[in-house]
Amino acid sequence: ARPRVGYFYTGKSNTQILSDKVKTITVDHYKSRPVVVNESSSVYEAITTMFLEDVGTLFVVDKLATLSGVVSRKDLLRASLGQQSLETIPVGVIMTRMPNITVCHGDDFIIDIAKKLITKQIDGLPIVKKVTHGSGYEVTGRITKTNITSLLVDLANNESI
Amino acid sequence: ARPRVGYFYTGKSNTQILSDKVKTITVDHYKSRPVVVNESSSVYEAITTMFLEDVGTLFVVDKLATLSGVVSRKDLLRASLGQQSLETIPVGVIMTRMPNITVCHGDDFIIDIAKKLITKQIDGLPIVKKVTHGSGYEVTGRITKTNITSLLVDLANNESI
Repeated sequence: ARPRVGYFYTGKSNTQILSDKVKTITVDHYKSRPVVVNESSSVYEAITTMFLEDVGTLFVVDKLATLSGVVSRKDLLRASLGQQSLETIPVGVIMTRMPNITVCHGDDFIIDIAKKLITKQIDGLPIVKKVTHGSGYEVTGRITKTNITSLLVDLANNESI
Repeated sequence: ARPRVGYFYTGKSNTQILSDKVKTITVDHYKSRPVVVNESSSVYEAITTMFLEDVGTLFVVDKLATLSGVVSRKDLLRASLGQQSLETIPVGVIMTRMPNITVCHGDDFIIDIAKKLITKQIDGLPIVKKVTHGSGYEVTGRITKTNITSLLVDLANNESI
């Protein structure tokens, strides 16, 4: 697209300005609160939590309350097709387990996270901070395609971000 | 945020330029292909289709191949908790049915659709064209938060859109 409304003294194009702005926004500006379940919870409890909290991704924590896994609506749907009773299978059996989890940090740029969500085909990521016990990560937030969509709406609404 | 790189002859701020640009993009630029099932398909078939096609939203069509419903991963997960056999319940029983469906058109602005996805808390919408038979809508595409996320990535990458 060509600039339609004058030009800059700096020689930067409109699209450059736009991308410069988008690139400065961090995850902390658009995160949601995390919803967690214990590794020993049943798949049934996980599904119930997902509905009660109305989220698409749950984070699973160990006894030390550090991140041990991630479970998505897709994982739970797959599990529900199985022959086993959902009340007896622990969510730890069906979750994606550390270290196979993509995590992010509050000061990561949101645009880099958007790219990860697209390339890895996942709906949401845990925002973590490093700790020295357990898995080494405490969960502090959640970032999803919904947050990214909200960001785009704010950009279009010309909000100060 | 303040403009950091000079100014325009037009007096427009950077954020105005940015929002002007975002507001010109239509659904047709960022749509995905629709994945449909028949109203008479079982819930089990719908879940299988969702996994095989790797989508989060299915569109349900009637015998005239016009839109009769929408079914999400959440709907299917809820159904899978029930006591009935997934092979015997038709997807038509659990879907969201016309006219309670939000639809959009290829020439709608994507930013308006992004707002609808946020306010209605849904993951994806059918893109339709009007016809004079059946429900009055044929499904031509699908637009989801994934498409919106891709758009933001392209904006930041400074792509010509």
